[in-house]
Amino acid sequence: MTNKKEIIAGIIIIGNEVLSGRTKDINTSTIATWLNSLGIQVKEVRIIPDDEKIIIETVNKLRKKFNYIFTTGGIGPTHDDITALSISRAFNIEYGFHKEAFSILKNYYKPGEFTEGRQKMAKMPITANLILNPSSGAPGFYLENVFCLPGVPSILKSMLGGLNNILVGGDTVLSKTLNLRTVESEIAKSLSEVQNQTKEVEIGSYPFFRAGKLGVSIVLRSTDQSKIDKCSDQIFEFVKKKNIEVLREI
Amino acid sequence: MTNKKEIIAGIIIIGNEVLSGRTKDINTSTIATWLNSLGIQVKEVRIIPDDEKIIIETVNKLRKKFNYIFTTGGIGPTHDDITALSISRAFNIEYGFHKEAFSILKNYYKPGEFTEGRQKMAKMPITANLILNPSSGAPGFYLENVFCLPGVPSILKSMLGGLNNILVGGDTVLSKTLNLRTVESEIAKSLSEVQNQTKEVEIGSYPFFRAGKLGVSIVLRSTDQSKIDKCSDQIFEFVKKKNIEVLREI
Repeated sequence: MTNKKEIIAGIIIIGNEVLSGRTKDINTSTIATWLNSLGIQVKEVRIIPDDEKIIIETVNKLRKKFNYIFTTGGIGPTHDDITALSISRAFNIEYGFHKEAFSILKNYYKPGEFTEGRQKMAKMPITANLILNPSSGAPGFYLENVFCLPGVPSILKSMLGGLNNILVGGDTVLSKTLNLRTVESEIAKSLSEVQNQTKEVEIGSYPFFRAGKLGVSIVLRSTDQSKIDKCSDQIFEFVKKKNIEVLREI
Repeated sequence: MTNKKEIIAGIIIIGNEVLSGRTKDINTSTIATWLNSLGIQVKEVRIIPDDEKIIIETVNKLRKKFNYIFTTGGIGPTHDDITALSISRAFNIEYGFHKEAFSILKNYYKPGEFTEGRQKMAKMPITANLILNPSSGAPGFYLENVFCLPGVPSILKSMLGGLNNILVGGDTVLSKTLNLRTVESEIAKSLSEVQNQTKEVEIGSYPFFRAGKLGVSIVLRSTDQSKIDKCSDQIFEFVKKKNIEVLREI
């Protein structure tokens, strides 16, 4: 097996509505799951307000730290959408009408409906690359390793596929999940022994409560399937000894 | 109206399962909504891995930046639960059995069931203050302005009430939401004019798609009800002029 290097990403969720608790962020999960499939691992997420100074600082800090950065939110037509302007300033690139974006939006709307508000969605760093939007016309964009996506989950999701050939991934992280009818404290010691023997597998333990009963999900993650299998065998061994029911194995 | 100072908080979500996309974080929304009701505003959230060095760095950075910090996750009995140890090291306080926590857990379990795994949940910075857990016995804890809560949403939620008398809030942020049958670009300019006239109200605009129809939620937030009412009146004025249907006003 050839070893590609680890490719890592950060996500910046921009939006007062998430910080106020009004909106639950589901974009992190969507982006992370998609990136996993490309061999890219999310290592940090920051949720920050719609504040130009904070956006600029956060983007400039994280883009040096990770191979890829994804921002969500703040690229719509209203006054509180300041991501495109802030990114322009972070990169010191002129903010203005992006020719291709303007033309896409002009064609998208009926004559007379391409209003001033809608035209704002064509404003961004003028040399940015576009991320096409099959849902609602208004494109996202990227500059170097920073990819700017909208905040509306269904629209964001529809735009990710267009980036599959642009991002370069590393080794894919494989995973296996074992759902057990037990509680964490019952298996903590044995699980710890398995982890100590195989450091290359990340073993996570997550209690759940479903249909009135307690259980634990054990998640094994590694780029090496044989090491996952080894850990899985060791877990099955102690599970059998302890008479623990295996609910599901995925 | 007396002006109390703004009290701000940061949240640190600790967990590989959130970064991998497997688990959607809902604790941010729970904590932020509860803090709002106490007059405390969340200004930043970071989602980080179960990694001691990163936990220590993040906690030590953010606890200087905000009045309060809340961590979630990593205080259970398994090997991947390293928050309590990391917080001990961040504060340079001995990590060991916390007498009161040990006694609570010992009483919680039947004789013979207080196993080694369960005992680990009594290990934390030995001088920490406890956060009682009405759901499952194992307490959280706090040191200075850093409050450590579990990751399981229902358990976390049940523990917040116990902190109401410990946290000191500032002015409560009031809010009003107007749901309109329109699209953002239709109202962007008028909304921007309202915002420019009243800077003390944060006006957010959030498109939604429900039951096959598009709409926009406008959220007005401020510590001053009269300023919210003023903005609301101005919005109703242009909404009426534009013949936009008001779906809901909360």
